[in-house]
Amino acid sequence: MAGNSFGQVFKITTFGESHGPAVGVIVDGVTPGVEIDEAYIQIQLDRRKPGQSTVTSPRKESDIVHILSGMYEGKTTGTPLCMMMHNHDMQSSAYNDIQHAFRPGHADFTYLQKYGIRDHRGSGRASGRETAGRVAAGAVARKLLEHRGVSLVAYTKAIGGIHCETFDEQEIERNAVRACDPNAAAAMVAKIEALAAVGNSCGGIVECRIRGVLPGIGEPVFDKLDAELARAMLSIGAVKGIEFGAGFAAAEMLGSEHNDQMQAAGFISNHAGGIIGGISTGEDIIFRVAVKPTSSISVPQQTINVSGEEQSIVTEGRHDPCICPRIVPIIEAMACLVLEDQFKRHAAMHH
Amino acid sequence: MAGNSFGQVFKITTFGESHGPAVGVIVDGVTPGVEIDEAYIQIQLDRRKPGQSTVTSPRKESDIVHILSGMYEGKTTGTPLCMMMHNHDMQSSAYNDIQHAFRPGHADFTYLQKYGIRDHRGSGRASGRETAGRVAAGAVARKLLEHRGVSLVAYTKAIGGIHCETFDEQEIERNAVRACDPNAAAAMVAKIEALAAVGNSCGGIVECRIRGVLPGIGEPVFDKLDAELARAMLSIGAVKGIEFGAGFAAAEMLGSEHNDQMQAAGFISNHAGGIIGGISTGEDIIFRVAVKPTSSISVPQQTINVSGEEQSIVTEGRHDPCICPRIVPIIEAMACLVLEDQFKRHAAMHH
Amino acid sequence: MAGNSFGQVFKITTFGESHGPAVGVIVDGVTPGVEIDEAYIQIQLDRRKPGQSTVTSPRKESDIVHILSGMYEGKTTGTPLCMMMHNHDMQSSAYNDIQHAFRPGHADFTYLQKYGIRDHRGSGRASGRETAGRVAAGAVARKLLEHRGVSLVAYTKAIGGIHCETFDEQEIERNAVRACDPNAAAAMVAKIEALAAVGNSCGGIVECRIRGVLPGIGEPVFDKLDAELARAMLSIGAVKGIEFGAGFAAAEMLGSEHNDQMQAAGFISNHAGGIIGGISTGEDIIFRVAVKPTSSISVPQQTINVSGEEQSIVTEGRHDPCICPRIVPIIEAMACLVLEDQFKRHAAMHH
Amino acid sequence: MAGNSFGQVFKITTFGESHGPAVGVIVDGVTPGVEIDEAYIQIQLDRRKPGQSTVTSPRKESDIVHILSGMYEGKTTGTPLCMMMHNHDMQSSAYNDIQHAFRPGHADFTYLQKYGIRDHRGSGRASGRETAGRVAAGAVARKLLEHRGVSLVAYTKAIGGIHCETFDEQEIERNAVRACDPNAAAAMVAKIEALAAVGNSCGGIVECRIRGVLPGIGEPVFDKLDAELARAMLSIGAVKGIEFGAGFAAAEMLGSEHNDQMQAAGFISNHAGGIIGGISTGEDIIFRVAVKPTSSISVPQQTINVSGEEQSIVTEGRHDPCICPRIVPIIEAMACLVLEDQFKRHAAMHH
Repeated sequence: MAGNSFGQVFKITTFGESHGPAVGVIVDGVTPGVEIDEAYIQIQLDRRKPGQSTVTSPRKESDIVHILSGMYEGKTTGTPLCMMMHNHDMQSSAYNDIQHAFRPGHADFTYLQKYGIRDHRGSGRASGRETAGRVAAGAVARKLLEHRGVSLVAYTKAIGGIHCETFDEQEIERNAVRACDPNAAAAMVAKIEALAAVGNSCGGIVECRIRGVLPGIGEPVFDKLDAELARAMLSIGAVKGIEFGAGFAAAEMLGSEHNDQMQAAGFISNHAGGIIGGISTGEDIIFRVAVKPTSSISVPQQTINVSGEEQSIVTEGRHDPCICPRIVPIIEAMACLVLEDQFKRHAAMHH
Repeated sequence: MAGNSFGQVFKITTFGESHGPAVGVIVDGVTPGVEIDEAYIQIQLDRRKPGQSTVTSPRKESDIVHILSGMYEGKTTGTPLCMMMHNHDMQSSAYNDIQHAFRPGHADFTYLQKYGIRDHRGSGRASGRETAGRVAAGAVARKLLEHRGVSLVAYTKAIGGIHCETFDEQEIERNAVRACDPNAAAAMVAKIEALAAVGNSCGGIVECRIRGVLPGIGEPVFDKLDAELARAMLSIGAVKGIEFGAGFAAAEMLGSEHNDQMQAAGFISNHAGGIIGGISTGEDIIFRVAVKPTSSISVPQQTINVSGEEQSIVTEGRHDPCICPRIVPIIEAMACLVLEDQFKRHAAMHH
Repeated sequence: MAGNSFGQVFKITTFGESHGPAVGVIVDGVTPGVEIDEAYIQIQLDRRKPGQSTVTSPRKESDIVHILSGMYEGKTTGTPLCMMMHNHDMQSSAYNDIQHAFRPGHADFTYLQKYGIRDHRGSGRASGRETAGRVAAGAVARKLLEHRGVSLVAYTKAIGGIHCETFDEQEIERNAVRACDPNAAAAMVAKIEALAAVGNSCGGIVECRIRGVLPGIGEPVFDKLDAELARAMLSIGAVKGIEFGAGFAAAEMLGSEHNDQMQAAGFISNHAGGIIGGISTGEDIIFRVAVKPTSSISVPQQTINVSGEEQSIVTEGRHDPCICPRIVPIIEAMACLVLEDQFKRHAAMHH
Repeated sequence: MAGNSFGQVFKITTFGESHGPAVGVIVDGVTPGVEIDEAYIQIQLDRRKPGQSTVTSPRKESDIVHILSGMYEGKTTGTPLCMMMHNHDMQSSAYNDIQHAFRPGHADFTYLQKYGIRDHRGSGRASGRETAGRVAAGAVARKLLEHRGVSLVAYTKAIGGIHCETFDEQEIERNAVRACDPNAAAAMVAKIEALAAVGNSCGGIVECRIRGVLPGIGEPVFDKLDAELARAMLSIGAVKGIEFGAGFAAAEMLGSEHNDQMQAAGFISNHAGGIIGGISTGEDIIFRVAVKPTSSISVPQQTINVSGEEQSIVTEGRHDPCICPRIVPIIEAMACLVLEDQFKRHAAMHH
């Protein structure tokens, strides 16, 4: 029960470390006979990869997907779909200075505690690189969801205290931070560049909106649609919180304010965020996640080394000063994985 | 893959509806030879049951636990531990007025969409009554965690916009809202009573603090300790969000502020909430959940009936005007279930 | 991962010991809206219970099923279906003589080794009584399979070296040993009665034939239909082997003999037993299991006690001299559970 | 819930088809810090590969294992261990003659029924090639079991009606059929060569003996050690039956004969095959599997094509006339996977 699999019926298992030969994923439970190709998957991987703009890490990861199984003549076969991305541009030497010291905010301390293994090169399994496999698998799920009429979009809602004031879906892929408001986006980019210049980082909030899910999807009681989405999002390293619909604001609302009343045409409001009792209502599913500031900064920090001795540390390297733009496709991928799995589980119960 | 089980190695499966003969739970994977008795479990069930104070539902649920299996001479046997609580005081007739109308904020609409079944009596499986089984199982996990040196406490942090200003653990069980600040507690009770008088309800925030978890517990990458806790908490009907450590505030922090630096004596701060990379750091694990206002209110609301016709609805009945005080033991129970499972999974990998 | 659950999508979890208050089962993943009642389930439980004839144990277990959840107005709701059977007629005192000695062929030695618990009353969780929960759950699966056009029948093929020479399905429920040949049945009954008179027991072979499974059911590669059936059958205490179609005889056949050739009307033979590559062929699914002689005999045997001291033992009590007649409904139940689960898994992949 | 994973705590997922780019496996739940290298794994892969002798297929599969993740400086890290073997020497053109006809005894008919996909090249996922991943994973489990003091050996017991009369463990790897009796081995080789000369094939029986498993391993009730071994063995394409200890012979024994009596030094006999109540007794675990004759023969057979038209078929190609010698390492691998998983599950319950 090591935790490298996700999903029950549509199930993925990822593998790979940041400085090993490759990362990848097996997707099991894929509907057979569905047309899909590497180019479709590559689109999502390209959205995740570093080096996209001035506000992302300049690392070069080509992240070319290789499909090793589960496809025949351009269609899925229903057998396990294995996708692999080779690792390149691994500058392990960049990590030599921090060979023995724990990087604040990083998982190297906890991994050593858990496994008794000290691999100072990059972040090993805790690296964001592991998410390449998720994004590739998520693209497969996205394709299956298209056939169900489901679409979804995630976008930066806030970065470093700057909040989007408008929502223009067309803007999202046009700016470097994947924000839904072009004015806020410009301010966010400026803020990130300023922080990067001094070796610091910042966090933000990403929102996701899912459309086209008919009412009735989600498995009570423990595998509620929101519970599964929450687990999926918190499984992303930088995510520290999630809220659905009104979310934490619901804590200050009255029942008469929060309840979504109904009329013949449907729900009048959507404070629930499209999920009640763990089951989709048919309204848009809406949630927001809190993204912490990137841990890797070159501001000097206090830490200890593996011998317990105190020292100062400066994490050099090519890191993202704000991970929000690159976390957007990961959030979409995880949401796709949850949804396709829940659709298939729903089908299993009724057939 | 209907979702009525929770946990991988220490696994529970709950059963029962609010208006059926009984609710209960099977706990599988219990360590054999552990002393436990019904009185120990009853303590937690009594904290969850209605009728404890003026701010909880006056319903009478004696919730007496019956252990049907898995015990011999006062000790666990390692075989499935089945616990059952009979249902009593079921006033189905109270629901006759709302027989055909959907209650805003309730799961009756989504359950009908999912299962094609309309059971207007109470909330069926979506009822808070289902959580009695969780609390009984959580008490078993709590006992096992005691042997590991782990303890935990949840408490109301805010209700209806009133926030605790101080933290006094001894206060929690002394006031009707299980708040950690006696002054805030008095204001909260007054607010709830006022809302109850006009048939309305309010939400709040509950915090949980877990002590004594050594570093190294949690299964990356998908079953991170925080991911599992998030799923567990969002599986509780009224919960709409969760955040760990600094949580959503992290979105506005710099990396240099959020990173928990280390010195020889340990971490200097705990913005991470005791979990980094999905693995415990050894610091206290801290999270907060957003609790929505109770859906059942007697303020008139607009809704439709099963035929799609618009009507007004007033939900009579004996409901909690604020669920925070009773959700506290449920949150503790779910946290215990996650932790005991993660400890056992950790053991499995290393043995 | 204690092993008290079976099935992936249509999943059961059993609980209960032979001398505790009750045994039972939770069935999760039941199709909602299916008409079923306790009487239908009771039919199968009555086929399993002791005291049916001169060749079964004279113990009285009324085995009345109580449905605690998952039903509303005579139909399944899609929520967990919990069924409980109270234990009665527990003569624990009958076991006092063997309080400290291990009964040869019994699981009391291995259970003590595994759990460190010595419960000398009956067989605890290893008792055949545990199978009551399986039979109740199997009846639910059988009802769902009826809607799929699947039927099945198991029957005694051989007992104590006496083999059925003919197959008359109508005969099976007419004779005390559930054999498919009335003449063989009479000889079997005589043999069992003679062995019972001297306190001994014998084994046999039970065959199962499943009709109406369309081609395409079964999940390669590890959850092949035959692999799941094998696991299911070997999970029954007294079963020591299983073979499909030609089975062990295939080891002495040539490829040209064993291959099932095809013509336009379908397969010409069925040496495969209705399963190739782990997937149903559309032919009848046929397998046989080896049933060991009942361990509880009153012939004196050599054993040791819990202190390791050698002694003689005579297992008094009211035991079945041959378990074949009562294992028939258990085999059918387990086969139903496997099939319904595989049908649902197949649906999940294609929807 | 497609069935490409095996194990609960020590879990593998295989991928790959016979004529795709590669086959492989992810092993999740590996104990960290264990020394293992590719050479150790290659030993087992070499025992499985074709072209070892005159009685195996002359196909050339180099089957060189590539470890893609989960290792660092010669030790396991506790993260997913991905192993890949490239496919070579794929003569798809050899299959052109049978492009549209179903090969008797093969899974091409059932796969088409299940997935709606017709891939005539080799056997796709049903190919024995898929087992390369299992053997690689099994080698990892074998290494972990060595540290537990567990060893195991499988060997051919009978082929084409020729039975081993003696047992000499040293002989097994010395003869081409991996039989435990050198005289029988010579006769088996002669028989296979004669059958191969006329394009026919034969089956056999393989026995497996596991030593060093302490009493107490195995998870009742559904995941009994024998139930899991049965599932594991029946998941191998050519296996049609399994029996433990006395097995089918138990059906003709009396209780007084079959029961394994005990004395101070331990069990006097081992008719149970080392497992009672699904839990290891401490005696050697012994089981036998029935292996069907290879389906691919060049004797003309009657079949239909995908349009349902009758035709004759001759399966050319480079096939094994008897799969017993090559199935031996696969059986050992699957047994290792079951055991390591059960050991870890046992640990989880007790820690």
